[in-house]
Amino acid sequence: MQHRSEETRAHILDAALRQFAIAGYNSASVDEICAVAGVSKGAFYHHFHSKQAVFLALLEGWLTMIDLGLEAARQETVPATLMHMTGLLPAVFATAEDSLPMFLEFWLQASRDETIWQALIAPYQRYQQYFAELVERGKAEGSFRADADAQASAQAFVALAVGLLLQGVLDPKGADWEKTAGQGIKILLKGLEK
Amino acid sequence: MQHRSEETRAHILDAALRQFAIAGYNSASVDEICAVAGVSKGAFYHHFHSKQAVFLALLEGWLTMIDLGLEAARQETVPATLMHMTGLLPAVFATAEDSLPMFLEFWLQASRDETIWQALIAPYQRYQQYFAELVERGKAEGSFRADADAQASAQAFVALAVGLLLQGVLDPKGADWEKTAGQGIKILLKGLEK
Repeated sequence: MQHRSEETRAHILDAALRQFAIAGYNSASVDEICAVAGVSKGAFYHHFHSKQAVFLALLEGWLTMIDLGLEAARQETVPATLMHMTGLLPAVFATAEDSLPMFLEFWLQASRDETIWQALIAPYQRYQQYFAELVERGKAEGSFRADADAQASAQAFVALAVGLLLQGVLDPKGADWEKTAGQGIKILLKGLEK
Repeated sequence: MQHRSEETRAHILDAALRQFAIAGYNSASVDEICAVAGVSKGAFYHHFHSKQAVFLALLEGWLTMIDLGLEAARQETVPATLMHMTGLLPAVFATAEDSLPMFLEFWLQASRDETIWQALIAPYQRYQQYFAELVERGKAEGSFRADADAQASAQAFVALAVGLLLQGVLDPKGADWEKTAGQGIKILLKGLEK
């Protein structure tokens, strides 16, 4: 029964991802999500309180993926860690066509809904903190200049990542995004290194 | 009459901007836009073929604003030009709360609609080209290293700008975005300078 229940939950999440991508968050209805998932409304509400709850679960899953990626990228030195992160990009862009609308919906709904905004902005600030600590570590290990501003550098790294992700998913064939990300990070590193 | 007609067009654009922001592009209807604008459907279709045509007109207006800003930022040297661009940000963020949903709708609809995608990706590539030429000019004037990769640097500048814009409109109070942008550009400049 447990297994069956988890399967139902996964079906609902898949169906919601699809419906949000096709119709948009506002237009997608719980009825449609149930129809696509092949589950009853009773089953839906057993797993999720509302359409927003499904949305937040999808957002959480997406953020967990990023967290795992950042953890896996950790290397001996900070510059090596940052360069290694570009290696995550092929996996991101491989699913780009499917994930772009959802990715933009996260931001769009965050601009309209306080609960979703909170759920998106908290991890955003966490990434900001993660990169600030990375820059501090880079200063401590002697890779970066002692006067490098950790908060500003962190914001630059986060902005570069978000900007590249958006460009890359919007125009997957417009550039070799892995190479581009690597070169962008190299320029930032050169700006920070001793 | 000409004046009156232009006024009607402006009312329709304002109403559409508002409806797209509140309801989203998919949910907003021509009927609602007409009601908010206080114009007849006949008047609407005199000015625009479709909801998509209004959307594209809003996108064009937004891009024209960016073009004017980039033109106005031009200074004696390339580093000075890039630093001067951060001076445009207060004006951008002043309207942030109103413009964010629309800004995200441009990307979201581009991911769903080939015509809108073309209308968004062409200027995106133009900005890319603009920054690549700026970097080349910086190399020619002796500000930047001769081996700096103009295309990669341009992509880094565009990604940084897009990423900062998105962070700034999503979380206006999260940082001093003008200062952050200035520091981000300074790090990139340091990475490019001789």
